[in-house]
Amino acid sequence: MINRLVQQIQKTKAPICVGLDPMLSYIPEYILKQCFREFGETLEGAADAIWQFNKAIVDHTYDLVPSVKPQIAMYEQFGIEGLKAYDKTVKYCQEKGLLVIGDAKRGDIGSTSAAYAAAHLGKIKVGNTWCTGFGTDFLTVNPYLGTDGIKPFVDVCKEEDKGLFVLVKTSNPSSGEFQDRLVDGRPVYELVAEKVVEWGADCMDGTYSNIGAVVGATYPEMSAILRKLMPNTYFLVPGYGAQGGTAADLKPCFNEDGLGAVVNSSRGIIAAYKQEKYAKFGAEHFAEASRQAVIDMVADINTIF
Amino acid sequence: MINRLVQQIQKTKAPICVGLDPMLSYIPEYILKQCFREFGETLEGAADAIWQFNKAIVDHTYDLVPSVKPQIAMYEQFGIEGLKAYDKTVKYCQEKGLLVIGDAKRGDIGSTSAAYAAAHLGKIKVGNTWCTGFGTDFLTVNPYLGTDGIKPFVDVCKEEDKGLFVLVKTSNPSSGEFQDRLVDGRPVYELVAEKVVEWGADCMDGTYSNIGAVVGATYPEMSAILRKLMPNTYFLVPGYGAQGGTAADLKPCFNEDGLGAVVNSSRGIIAAYKQEKYAKFGAEHFAEASRQAVIDMVADINTIF
Repeated sequence: MINRLVQQIQKTKAPICVGLDPMLSYIPEYILKQCFREFGETLEGAADAIWQFNKAIVDHTYDLVPSVKPQIAMYEQFGIEGLKAYDKTVKYCQEKGLLVIGDAKRGDIGSTSAAYAAAHLGKIKVGNTWCTGFGTDFLTVNPYLGTDGIKPFVDVCKEEDKGLFVLVKTSNPSSGEFQDRLVDGRPVYELVAEKVVEWGADCMDGTYSNIGAVVGATYPEMSAILRKLMPNTYFLVPGYGAQGGTAADLKPCFNEDGLGAVVNSSRGIIAAYKQEKYAKFGAEHFAEASRQAVIDMVADINTIF
Repeated sequence: MINRLVQQIQKTKAPICVGLDPMLSYIPEYILKQCFREFGETLEGAADAIWQFNKAIVDHTYDLVPSVKPQIAMYEQFGIEGLKAYDKTVKYCQEKGLLVIGDAKRGDIGSTSAAYAAAHLGKIKVGNTWCTGFGTDFLTVNPYLGTDGIKPFVDVCKEEDKGLFVLVKTSNPSSGEFQDRLVDGRPVYELVAEKVVEWGADCMDGTYSNIGAVVGATYPEMSAILRKLMPNTYFLVPGYGAQGGTAADLKPCFNEDGLGAVVNSSRGIIAAYKQEKYAKFGAEHFAEASRQAVIDMVADINTIF
């Protein structure tokens, strides 16, 4: 699976994913009004607005990018109706040829992790019939519970040719509270990084492993160390743009071949029309503003190579 | 909210939660057959079987216990249909007067954690209308991302009088890989425990805080240390029974007043009829076997006081 991502990155020259993390406050009034008229101010109305919004953005950007990263929390907050919009979005993106990174940060142990893996990456047997749940291509997972928690996901990745991104060093200000604490002189995130390499060693798909890592753009000196520690691990990089990471900050996440990282931008792309820079598009043309924001982001990132 | 749990524990003399973690392999053939006949071997058929199974167990145990803990992964693996069964189970348990601990181990940062908190514990505004997603009473959360990740959940707990259980020391064999590593001579889980106390300090509800901790039954010497470090923190304790924890192992999780812990059992209760001890009930009477298993578990735990 990671090799498909690499190929799509090479084809588009865009090492990015569009973060489909819709908030109702990002969605133009005219869409909200129309959906509330049809479904009321209900979870169904909100979910329909999200779907309309996502669809327009995907329609205006799918030819420019290799992948999208829907943040499932933004759908889950609207309950079952929201999750239907997530499901619809995942399938629509896949129809458009995009690889979908489900940002769910799931993590548990044993049969419970196996159930999450089945839910998001694999299949589940009902009687004698195999059924599919959300069927994303990659999933983000949390390592706090150790190997017992990650192994069931790795097994499904092997069986189904899917991929993971394991949280290693996150982009948020308080990520250091536990991740940076020193164990025998080395931060916890380095220990996690070593485990990610170990888990991914027999999941190679070309030069890279199907077991990747989440490494925030906001700590470039740490990215540089992690890049050396994990030469064959793909990085999913949050924190560019709205969270403060710049193109220069991203450089240490990449290998010398220009590969090794896929950079996420959410707000910066999907709510571009709300920025002064793209205000000329207006709310009616929000998806064209998103297209321009993708073009600008790709140009910005390509300055570092 | 934690005070309601304490009161219900005192009323039932049962410091336990029934882990509603249905696997299709636990569900008697006659239920599966009936559901597949109606809905086919589909996600819908599986979800209906889970619901029938859960409902029978709840009907046969609700008067004996204060709380249930559905593991959302076991529903999520059946996609949208599975999550509908989760939702139905949560609401049914609440109608029966049970407190529901959503075992979701969610965790992210900022607005994303806020979205998960809204999804599971709070409300979400759609236009001018407040809507509710899953509406559980407590939620389990993962601390790996630090305060940024937990604070939005804590805020919702304060607003809505709900509760959390933060993963501190989990019950699985590899939990030590990161949790036990020494930072300045102290294990990571102790640092997490201190943060849990800090996060919970202004969420007191009676003697205990609404911000609790997950502490596995399988490491009693660590439970004893954590009990001292966190005297006003309620423990959600997995690992009893099927995972190897005994009543004696649970003792250090409780305070001297006999409070401070709620012990989970999943398989041991919901699949009791599959154990030799309860085989006499037969598959037809699986829910009565579960009731007997609850009675036996409560008696076993009460031997430690």
